[in-house]
Amino acid sequence: MARKLQVAVSGLGRMGARHARHFLERTPRAELVAAFDPNPAAIAWAKQHLEPYGVKLYTDFDEMLKHPGLEAVVVAGITTEHASQSISAIQAGKHVLCEKPLSTSVEISQKVLDAANLKPHLKVLCGFSRRFDASYRNAWERMDAGGIGRPAIIRSQTCDKYRDDNYFVEYAAHSGGIFVDANIHDIDLAFWFFGQDSVVKSVVATGINARYAGMAKHGDVDNGVAIVEFWGGKIAYFYSSRMMMAGQTDTTEIIGTHGKLTINANPANDLVEMHEPTGIRREITETYYDRFEQAFVRESNEFTECVLDGKKLPFKLSGAVQAVKIGSALRESLQTGKKIDFDENGAQIVDERARL
Amino acid sequence: MARKLQVAVSGLGRMGARHARHFLERTPRAELVAAFDPNPAAIAWAKQHLEPYGVKLYTDFDEMLKHPGLEAVVVAGITTEHASQSISAIQAGKHVLCEKPLSTSVEISQKVLDAANLKPHLKVLCGFSRRFDASYRNAWERMDAGGIGRPAIIRSQTCDKYRDDNYFVEYAAHSGGIFVDANIHDIDLAFWFFGQDSVVKSVVATGINARYAGMAKHGDVDNGVAIVEFWGGKIAYFYSSRMMMAGQTDTTEIIGTHGKLTINANPANDLVEMHEPTGIRREITETYYDRFEQAFVRESNEFTECVLDGKKLPFKLSGAVQAVKIGSALRESLQTGKKIDFDENGAQIVDERARL
Amino acid sequence: MARKLQVAVSGLGRMGARHARHFLERTPRAELVAAFDPNPAAIAWAKQHLEPYGVKLYTDFDEMLKHPGLEAVVVAGITTEHASQSISAIQAGKHVLCEKPLSTSVEISQKVLDAANLKPHLKVLCGFSRRFDASYRNAWERMDAGGIGRPAIIRSQTCDKYRDDNYFVEYAAHSGGIFVDANIHDIDLAFWFFGQDSVVKSVVATGINARYAGMAKHGDVDNGVAIVEFWGGKIAYFYSSRMMMAGQTDTTEIIGTHGKLTINANPANDLVEMHEPTGIRREITETYYDRFEQAFVRESNEFTECVLDGKKLPFKLSGAVQAVKIGSALRESLQTGKKIDFDENGAQIVDERARL
Amino acid sequence: MARKLQVAVSGLGRMGARHARHFLERTPRAELVAAFDPNPAAIAWAKQHLEPYGVKLYTDFDEMLKHPGLEAVVVAGITTEHASQSISAIQAGKHVLCEKPLSTSVEISQKVLDAANLKPHLKVLCGFSRRFDASYRNAWERMDAGGIGRPAIIRSQTCDKYRDDNYFVEYAAHSGGIFVDANIHDIDLAFWFFGQDSVVKSVVATGINARYAGMAKHGDVDNGVAIVEFWGGKIAYFYSSRMMMAGQTDTTEIIGTHGKLTINANPANDLVEMHEPTGIRREITETYYDRFEQAFVRESNEFTECVLDGKKLPFKLSGAVQAVKIGSALRESLQTGKKIDFDENGAQIVDERARL
Repeated sequence: MARKLQVAVSGLGRMGARHARHFLERTPRAELVAAFDPNPAAIAWAKQHLEPYGVKLYTDFDEMLKHPGLEAVVVAGITTEHASQSISAIQAGKHVLCEKPLSTSVEISQKVLDAANLKPHLKVLCGFSRRFDASYRNAWERMDAGGIGRPAIIRSQTCDKYRDDNYFVEYAAHSGGIFVDANIHDIDLAFWFFGQDSVVKSVVATGINARYAGMAKHGDVDNGVAIVEFWGGKIAYFYSSRMMMAGQTDTTEIIGTHGKLTINANPANDLVEMHEPTGIRREITETYYDRFEQAFVRESNEFTECVLDGKKLPFKLSGAVQAVKIGSALRESLQTGKKIDFDENGAQIVDERARL
Repeated sequence: MARKLQVAVSGLGRMGARHARHFLERTPRAELVAAFDPNPAAIAWAKQHLEPYGVKLYTDFDEMLKHPGLEAVVVAGITTEHASQSISAIQAGKHVLCEKPLSTSVEISQKVLDAANLKPHLKVLCGFSRRFDASYRNAWERMDAGGIGRPAIIRSQTCDKYRDDNYFVEYAAHSGGIFVDANIHDIDLAFWFFGQDSVVKSVVATGINARYAGMAKHGDVDNGVAIVEFWGGKIAYFYSSRMMMAGQTDTTEIIGTHGKLTINANPANDLVEMHEPTGIRREITETYYDRFEQAFVRESNEFTECVLDGKKLPFKLSGAVQAVKIGSALRESLQTGKKIDFDENGAQIVDERARL
Repeated sequence: MARKLQVAVSGLGRMGARHARHFLERTPRAELVAAFDPNPAAIAWAKQHLEPYGVKLYTDFDEMLKHPGLEAVVVAGITTEHASQSISAIQAGKHVLCEKPLSTSVEISQKVLDAANLKPHLKVLCGFSRRFDASYRNAWERMDAGGIGRPAIIRSQTCDKYRDDNYFVEYAAHSGGIFVDANIHDIDLAFWFFGQDSVVKSVVATGINARYAGMAKHGDVDNGVAIVEFWGGKIAYFYSSRMMMAGQTDTTEIIGTHGKLTINANPANDLVEMHEPTGIRREITETYYDRFEQAFVRESNEFTECVLDGKKLPFKLSGAVQAVKIGSALRESLQTGKKIDFDENGAQIVDERARL
Repeated sequence: MARKLQVAVSGLGRMGARHARHFLERTPRAELVAAFDPNPAAIAWAKQHLEPYGVKLYTDFDEMLKHPGLEAVVVAGITTEHASQSISAIQAGKHVLCEKPLSTSVEISQKVLDAANLKPHLKVLCGFSRRFDASYRNAWERMDAGGIGRPAIIRSQTCDKYRDDNYFVEYAAHSGGIFVDANIHDIDLAFWFFGQDSVVKSVVATGINARYAGMAKHGDVDNGVAIVEFWGGKIAYFYSSRMMMAGQTDTTEIIGTHGKLTINANPANDLVEMHEPTGIRREITETYYDRFEQAFVRESNEFTECVLDGKKLPFKLSGAVQAVKIGSALRESLQTGKKIDFDENGAQIVDERARL
């Protein structure tokens, strides 16, 4: 009988619980053997939904790492634990699939990369889910085959459906800000489509609080706009928002010298259209997960396959550090109101006059 | 100074008034010189909107025909007058643009054709507006250029927006029924795309009164479905309705052996889309005129050009008789519940047993 | 540990192999324990893809039925075996999920129903996959909630992508004809949306061989059009084709007195659009499975859930017999060129004169 | 007989010739009486297309201004003459419809405004064609009615179809650069939707030459991205390009606190869609004029109506100066690589350190 990867999930919050179910039910070559969460409510949920299927539950992360036969850990708890848990797991010899971002800090993100580099036989993946989405992959392959000439401009946005409650304000306290939290996906896409070795030339960002005034106290905005230039004549520009009325609206355009590809320019929840007295209407996906569920499942399966079959991961961990670097620079630009320039090695150019 | 065609419009009801304005304001090579309507309300409107621009008003059709220098007449009044006015105008030596249908009766339609055939130097056009629509023409040219192989199946529908009043019921008293009144456009399209010499092989129709029960007393339905077979392996199928909620929904598919063309598969009023809590929405055109306004204007201009420059009309008058013939057969099938077959010359095959 | 339904799959051809994988990999509460196929090539495939995961392979159907602990059988082999295998499985006390159609014969389909009725504790499901599709369900729920008033007209089509080989001609030898094979889905939808107790009033069908002349020798067509009237003022009209160039194009419209729902009016393969010198383009799904993969997976899961939890199946087996009855009548109409009428009990009205 | 506005057109190049025809043929209340162009080729065209309809031709602009009875001048020649001709015409007591931009220089644009302010009884309009487009107006009215809450973010782009020749490079010599030439429409939209009294807070722009390297010698780019902040928490961001493969792609999004409106998010040339082996395709408009033809015609008619009936123009001339101011600042930002800040009165904040 074919052997299955022995996997544990750390963190059983909203996204962690989904990862747990993906490995339990929708990743045929993996076996979910353990799960960790310090939160009693999460454990209660797990007793009902995971334990009956043979999953051992832990309230101590380090104990879970010692679970017999454990091979891989999915780090999916709160962002502030991503880096430390990933490093512990790596040091314990486990393969790691860590939710994005590794950290909201460039330095801490780098430490995860350093730890991984010391264990080159381990697979360490940062979960940029769009990398596993069928549409983004289709677009990338078309671009890679020359279908749009040389890619030159990327427009990409990550826009959440509004919420009537205080969620986004509270979330802003720890999210790292809208550019690190939301546009990090778009930044990662820029590296994917422009090439992982692209070197940033400048960043500039601005934003407003149009609907959730409370975000200001966390130095965050509910709508952000940014431009990132890369050396070699490439530009990415981004938009992020927390107040879309219709639903999650994540759209990307890849504009090349000889064509353009769009991904999700026309969002839809399914294939139903309604003809009503007010016109023709369709609904769109509410949340990020509604949009990317299949991508998350493919992520689980491909991570499993890479470990079991010794295959290369589809993208490098170093990109996750680069993305945080850009996201952090955008946050700095938002807060200072200054454009930030970088030299051809990607080192930030400090305006000497600013020190006067 | 370039000479302009001297035109009169007969009938200043809803559609006639539009024709009058098209010739007055949007047909540079024509001059609207006269207009007729027996109705005082229409004349009152014309005194305000036509007379100030030099249009002579008449309440007697035959008097109008004697207007000095008159060259062409647009017959746009009530359907029951279409044929007699067209014949009078032809006999008076005028070019004629007659609104569809020539008549709801095949025999009477044929009389218009006979009159026109006696005056071959006159241009006599039945106003099938879709023939002048940019999208239908684009589709036809693509088909004609071989873009879809051999056309084999046509699906076409003429579907009106619902109305809360009794309009459709009253209208049914004289419209000739939904297949003659509404689907006649689709029947004409079938002849256009399959070829004007196509020979009908069978027709069958059915229908219901889903919303306007009162139509039954006129032998009419508010939703009709029909199949028309042509000899040589071609099928057209039609739908018509009086109860579309979103607006006028006239859609056509031309299916060939090697491709398909759709016209108005995604109706829209303009280029605006609304993102709302209920999803993404657009409005669509409310009426036939909203959808085909530009086609009506092109009709006026091309009719004028054909007369002034002695060009061939874009399609033959005989097609208008053929279309009424099919429409009438569909009405008969609706009322008898029988499929009607035709021989290879297009003559109706009478079921001898039915006479027993 | 939660118990899993013990399932076998009969027939490992294209669709059977998919069912096997769905139960093996994507139906967490089921365990694929056995599979049957008389064909060595299929068994060779199964040795590689099923046996390593503990699936016992059989080349004798009756032997497979004796597999220890077997609870349910998926009948997914050739159509001519559907009925006999289903009956055998039922008589052996197994739950059955049978691919559509039960049979191309009404009488034989009825025998499956009779067998099932004798074992009311067994779950016997005919696999109308669209019943499990998220979009069709969304539409049905909206209709059921009154969103379009009373449903009155259904337009539905099942249109396959063309093939350059002789597949469709060979397939026609045993498929039961395009109305039984393809439009059976649309017929089933009519019963679903109009109500399972709808009574047919008339059927009429026609068709052509536009591209695959060889189908004529099997009495089949490559393009079919049909109208089915139901008592109570409801009409369904259908189209089926084997020559769509762009891909699988299965579209449905549900038209009510106060609104319309469309399902897949704008087919798409994914969320990518290409801007090219020739315009804006998107690809669409190639095959029925590409379109309905998620529905098939949900079918496996819900069938499993109904058995394990003793729930009612989402629809009755009797509908599968009704659908074959209508499909067969359409085939008869196609072949005779006659419209067929039914009385208010759904009994075919024989034209006495035809017997003269 | 109703009197008609006596109009002259200055400049019979591509756009001027269109304006001439619009006033000749599609503006019922106006009469084109004169036209000016210094270019013999243009005059030759006019002898054929305008003179036969009674239009007097001039090769001297000042002579044309003396045309008996002349009331209004359309200034549609080369951009460098817009301002001086407009001023001359105003001083001669003529109403003016001037093509955009008044000038590529803020100072010169201001002189036109000053001249107009001295003759408040004259109608002086800068031809921002999108202001007359049905879709933009529909969107504006919905926003104005509160349909999207408070507008907060505008995304807008003006993107031309690529050309294989050297046109764009030559054009860049005098166009004022892509932000003044192309995005000026988007800037004007920002003022329209955010309010004409919006005060700029900062601008930043960047760009590349992805396809037409020759533009660099004119200090211009073939792809530009820009962000414009306004005081009061409003942001507009822009894209412009000269290399769209599919056609003219001018898209705008108006994002409010409670909804979003898009204009032309799904460009199309007409209502035809093509189903082909490569998928489903539609063509889009090739040029700016293809997209906005109806808007230009409405512009002619409304300008005429405002003069004849003494109505207020739909928007103020001062906005045209504001738009050039923003466009010029974007050009400066592009060239210096610096973000430019403005105080709450809209005065540019000069970085004192930069003067060191």
